[in-house]
Order: sequence, then structure tokens, then C-alpha cells
Amino acid sequence: MSIAYLNGRFVPLEQAQVSVLDRGFLFADGIYEVAAVIDGRLVDSASHLARLERSTGAIGIALPLSLAEVEAAQKELVARNGLTEGLVYLQITRGADATRDFLPSPGIAPTLVMFVQAKPFLDVPAARNGIAVATMPDLRWARRDIKSVGLLAQAMAKRAAAEAGAQEAWMVEDGFVTEGASSTAFIVTDEGIVTRPYSQAVLAGCTGAALNALAEESGIAVIRRPFAVAEALAAREAFIASASTLCQSVVRIDGQAIGDGKPGPVAMRLRALYIDFARRTAV
Amino acid sequence: MSIAYLNGRFVPLEQAQVSVLDRGFLFADGIYEVAAVIDGRLVDSASHLARLERSTGAIGIALPLSLAEVEAAQKELVARNGLTEGLVYLQITRGADATRDFLPSPGIAPTLVMFVQAKPFLDVPAARNGIAVATMPDLRWARRDIKSVGLLAQAMAKRAAAEAGAQEAWMVEDGFVTEGASSTAFIVTDEGIVTRPYSQAVLAGCTGAALNALAEESGIAVIRRPFAVAEALAAREAFIASASTLCQSVVRIDGQAIGDGKPGPVAMRLRALYIDFARRTAV
Repeated sequence: MSIAYLNGRFVPLEQAQVSVLDRGFLFADGIYEVAAVIDGRLVDSASHLARLERSTGAIGIALPLSLAEVEAAQKELVARNGLTEGLVYLQITRGADATRDFLPSPGIAPTLVMFVQAKPFLDVPAARNGIAVATMPDLRWARRDIKSVGLLAQAMAKRAAAEAGAQEAWMVEDGFVTEGASSTAFIVTDEGIVTRPYSQAVLAGCTGAALNALAEESGIAVIRRPFAVAEALAAREAFIASASTLCQSVVRIDGQAIGDGKPGPVAMRLRALYIDFARRTAV
Repeated sequence: MSIAYLNGRFVPLEQAQVSVLDRGFLFADGIYEVAAVIDGRLVDSASHLARLERSTGAIGIALPLSLAEVEAAQKELVARNGLTEGLVYLQITRGADATRDFLPSPGIAPTLVMFVQAKPFLDVPAARNGIAVATMPDLRWARRDIKSVGLLAQAMAKRAAAEAGAQEAWMVEDGFVTEGASSTAFIVTDEGIVTRPYSQAVLAGCTGAALNALAEESGIAVIRRPFAVAEALAAREAFIASASTLCQSVVRIDGQAIGDGKPGPVAMRLRALYIDFARRTAV
């Protein structure tokens, strides 16, 4: 039985409930984070906690715990569930008011929930064989730098991608790829690896940022600029990064093979570097 | 004590809870409707139910009840709460899965919740004196025709408007007003009343649609075209429409008086016509 964390208590996941008046439920007025767990330890935790603080700060939700206390609760949750490989999901909302109103009450107390998911991602077919992506119009709001739970556009894109036989959607705006529905998008060209610079148009991916640093340390140039779908289709390689996929090659885009249609050496090297980094720095 | 409806049962509102795995909570994967109650009866119910069906259809959530059954449950909720003037809030989400995944399980059962709010709106200062609005950038997603619970952009705009001393935010995109954060926007010019035509850029407001019909029946021309902020500032009158405000004059925009700074005759006439329509047709 899975154990969840809810507002300071550890409870069975199936008993973890929130009021229908919770603003996370009524207004998507909440922030989330997903961190990988490898060898029973949290991967790249400081980066996720820093982004949690940025996102909650951007919409004015006060964290009820310090970042160190959040991390301690995550570690205890991992231990209580005996999780060795998987994810820790965290969500904080502005909390539940006595009634529904767009304007929250001044004294409202945030809702903080965490739960784990056992999920292998080190040795999985998608990592060995690569994945297919389908491009979809980017329908999301203008503040994608805030990791809010308003994810309906992403869920719709993921569903449409799945119906097209793809494992991820790449969101396209004005002809350029913004990012994946739940990942950062990269291509490999003669220049090096190309990925969109941070702005309000994309989420600053924790795993992607780590990959950029690992690439640069290894002498692989990182070019931060938007890339068009046509350029991705003609790229040597393509790949995605996220906490739940780490780094996976993209071998098909909209049904068309990328490069020779097999995982490329740059993506596979970065994946290995990331797993080594994750193991070295996990807490 | 307020009584809520949750998945077929009537329960005290403070006991109405959903799983933290509900996709309404995790992904804003849900739809809502707000209908006015006057004299203990539902206002313009068929219009709200038709929109509920359109919104749920657009994102592929199957309603667990027929529209007639939804209306019957709403009426019972109004009766159980002894509500005479206020709102019935309804939310349907795709439901709770056993785990969090962007792709829902095939057999997932929707979550349907309803609750009421006692709220006077027939004889209130805002109706007599008009309201102030503040313009805000429209940060929302591209499918505003779907009445989804992804309302963080609207909540942020409402909060910024309140900080500017306004009771509503008018969302602005490319210089043109799309709509209010929770209302339809209108101005009155020499042509008649001007309001944005329906598209994916705005929600098709039920109250606004009724006002358009009442205006045309009364010989007031309705011009469906976008209007710019500058045009609104120079308009004879401005007003908003929604289930919770019915029709209210806008007497200030960004601190500047509209017309003579008092509720105008067209808005006041339409409000009276709407209240008469509401009372005649409520169920």
C-alpha cells in the first residue's frame, strides 16, 4: 500500500483527499514538481526545490515548509514506501477556502501533498530504442515558466500524440518547437546540441539544465535558440529530457525517421553522463 | 450547513472531498458551470447545460448523468439548501486514476460535484452604482471556448485588478479586449452594443448570449466584432454579463470614467430585461 504525505501527515494514498473547495481543484491554483528517485535517493533535488520556490513565488503561494523540510519529507516518503527507482510527486495549492471565489481569503492555508510512483526508467525499451514524437499546436497559457497544475493542454497534446503512435508531443508555436508536453526538446546539428532558451514560453527544465551543463563540460557545444520543425526533421539526432525519462532519443518525428532512425551517439552519451551525475549527486 | 452533491450523493459540503489523484486536482482536467438561482429557481438552465455538454464533449469527458438528470440534481440541491438567491456551481472532472499519468486509464469514472452559494445579486451596490474594471494582458490558453477549470490566469488577473481597485479584469490581447476574467465584455457605441464574436479566443457566455437576444428583440443593434481598449475608453457605456453579476455597468476602466461615470441607460435597461427574462424562464 502506497503512503502519501498530506499537510504534515503520512497517510495511505487512497485516503489522501482534499476538499472540493481546494483551489487546486477549482482553479488550478497550484504548483507541482516531479523528482526522480534512483537507488532510493532523490536526483538533482536542489534544482527541483529551487524551481518549486520560483514557481510558488511567481503566483504568491507561501511554502508551509522550508525547502530543507520539504526535502526531508520527500526522503521520509521514499523510505516509508521502500522506493528504489521511480518518482516523487509534489503539489502545493493555495488551499481550500470556505467558499469559491476567484480572490482567495487572506488567511488561507496551502495544501501540500506528495506521493511516490514506482517506475523503472534506467533500463527500459524507450531508453534503448528511442521514442517517437508527434508535433502538436502549443495551446498553453503565456506563463509556461511557472510549473502550474493547469495541464489540460499538455494532457490533450499527449493524448493526440498517443493516438498518432507517439510517446511524447512536441508543442509548436509560430513554426518553432517550444518544448515537449512534459519534457525539454533538443536536436543535434553540426553546431552541437540546440535547445530553446529560457523565457516565459517554456519551463526551465531541471534535467535539461543538467544535460546542458554535462554537455558543455564534455566539450559539446550547447546552442540556446529556437528551432523549427523542419530543422528537427533534418537533424542528426533529437532527444528529450525530463525527470521521468532522464534523457531519451527521439528517433521519429511525425512518422519521419531522424538521422538513421536509431538512438544517436550524442543522446546516448548524455544519457550515460546524466545517470552517472544522478548517482553521484543524489541525496 | 451547506449540502453538496458528490457523485450521486448529497453530503455536507465540508465532507465533500476528492482524491489527490483526481485529474481535476492534478491536471485541471475538468469543466465547470455556474448558474444563477433567483426565487429558488435555476436561471437560463438549458443554455448552461448545453454549454456543459459542449465543453465536456470538446475534451472527451462523458457525462455520467443526462442533462435532465443534472438539472434535477441541481434543483434538489437548491431545495435541500433552501437557496432562494445565489449560485449553483457544478464541476465535472475526468476522475481519479490509481496513479498519476498524463494519459488517463480507459475505464476512469468522472467526478461530478455541485454546491451552492447564497449570494444576493438583484439589489446590490455594484448593480446600482456600476463597477470599475482594470485591463490586464490575456495570458490564457488558446481554447477559451472550453469552460475548463484551468483558471489560474483568470485568478491572477482578478487579483491584479483588485489591487488596482477594480472589481473585474478585462483581458487584452493584441490591443483588443477578449472578455472579462469571469464575464463577457460589452461597450455601447453609436452603432449599438459591441461585443466580441464567438471563437476559440473567448467563452460563449450564456448570460451574454441572452442579453444579445434581449437587445435585438428590443431594437438595440448587436455588433459582433472585437473592440480595442481605446474604443472602450471612449464608449458611451460599458458593461459586463455573467451568471453571478447578470448585467452590471462598467463606470471606470483603468481609472478613467466611461461616459459620465455613471451607469448608462442601455446597460440598465438590459439588466432589467434580463431579470425579467430570468424570472419568466427560470426552472
